[in-house]
Amino acid sequence: MEASERIEGDQVNTPNMTRVITTGTLYGVGMGPGDPELLTLKALRVLERAPVLVHFCKKGRRGNSRTIADAVVTDPGREFPLIYPYTTELAPDDAEYVSALAAFYDDAAARLSDHLGAGRDVAILSEGDPFFYGSFMHLWRRLKGRFPIEVIPGVTGMSGCWTRAGTPITWGDDVLTVLPATLPNEKLLARLHDADAAVIMKLGRHLPKVRAALSATGLLDRAVYVERGTMAGESIVPLAEKGDDRAPYFSMVLVPGEGRRP
Amino acid sequence: MEASERIEGDQVNTPNMTRVITTGTLYGVGMGPGDPELLTLKALRVLERAPVLVHFCKKGRRGNSRTIADAVVTDPGREFPLIYPYTTELAPDDAEYVSALAAFYDDAAARLSDHLGAGRDVAILSEGDPFFYGSFMHLWRRLKGRFPIEVIPGVTGMSGCWTRAGTPITWGDDVLTVLPATLPNEKLLARLHDADAAVIMKLGRHLPKVRAALSATGLLDRAVYVERGTMAGESIVPLAEKGDDRAPYFSMVLVPGEGRRP
Repeated sequence: MEASERIEGDQVNTPNMTRVITTGTLYGVGMGPGDPELLTLKALRVLERAPVLVHFCKKGRRGNSRTIADAVVTDPGREFPLIYPYTTELAPDDAEYVSALAAFYDDAAARLSDHLGAGRDVAILSEGDPFFYGSFMHLWRRLKGRFPIEVIPGVTGMSGCWTRAGTPITWGDDVLTVLPATLPNEKLLARLHDADAAVIMKLGRHLPKVRAALSATGLLDRAVYVERGTMAGESIVPLAEKGDDRAPYFSMVLVPGEGRRP
Repeated sequence: MEASERIEGDQVNTPNMTRVITTGTLYGVGMGPGDPELLTLKALRVLERAPVLVHFCKKGRRGNSRTIADAVVTDPGREFPLIYPYTTELAPDDAEYVSALAAFYDDAAARLSDHLGAGRDVAILSEGDPFFYGSFMHLWRRLKGRFPIEVIPGVTGMSGCWTRAGTPITWGDDVLTVLPATLPNEKLLARLHDADAAVIMKLGRHLPKVRAALSATGLLDRAVYVERGTMAGESIVPLAEKGDDRAPYFSMVLVPGEGRRP
């Protein structure tokens, strides 16, 4: 960043001088669904220039958002990972899990604020779109008001998946319902019951429940399973033909709408 | 496009020769929400190289998708508009409207197939994401199976809007409901009644109905009105403070979710 582009932090006026303390800007960078060609021009520019880059990942894994940046980020000296305290998502009402996550985000926010306070821009690599189910949001919540923040929207994982599946998702007046598979069964059934088009995310170990709910609501025949859409190892099959009932976290089920087609 | 990159059309084998008839590829190019910096790298490359570029617009207007391309497309000799037969969206059950639209898409598909059949790639500039309520889908439906088609997903208008409004849209297990404002009132009420987070698109003349439905479902205080998000002339206000009950087609209402925040 050029100094002239910076947003100023505190400005201290004394009789004989004006001292400007310039803080860094926090960037939430939407990395898109996986294919590095689906980065935006704006995201690319920030990735090329930011002096500090961070990404979320699980212990012992690399993190998809970081892999997307491979073509751009070749200097490991300016980056560090934020490693989740758990390797799988536990029940959201588990008090220990929630408190460990909160401590993790608090600690991460403190590390980033050290850099920002010292005037260094920090870019957080966020899969898909940062404000759509993004871990970035938990740091944004802790740092907003304290530092300038710029969010760069990205192509969502679901857009990448329906594109690769070769199926438009919504036509005419179709309502799109986006559901996390983590929902309780009765809520999943109720939401699918009146869905025109649906996207079911965060499948993981919930695939059998999702399959049963789609079957009960008459949507199974339209459902498409997409794993690692736009990435290496991509797999796309009708859900009815997917024999295995395990799915990685980065997979989703699409139910394309059937609305108006003049 | 290089000849070596082309997907082959019909291949005719005779005893003494192999003749390859090469058709053009149809590209559905997601142009993003409006800011040209939110084009993807892939979209940019296709826009720079495709010999034929088309965009949808209303009579006498330019079309937002074309404006987004201004920084890239400087040669008017390779482009033409597809001009909608109506300047406002009429009732979807109006037989005359539906038949005029169908004829318009049939005619457009015929024009594009002339270019594709002659071996020229054609790129259709599509606002947001081509497979998400896109006019492109109506040409895709008419031309698929006849020509190679590649769709390039884009940042959706709604991602652009919630980013500029500075509000994450979904947290934790929030369900996102995307609704066209064109829906009948009772359907709008039912869908908003159990919405965690909502996006209401295609506002136009339906704003008073949408405001009433949000008020009836207790969501008005959370609702944000966004007009021309990421574009020149952008306007973002709490819906409750928007006095005027008219809205352009390219405006939407966001109801941010309030899910889990560890």
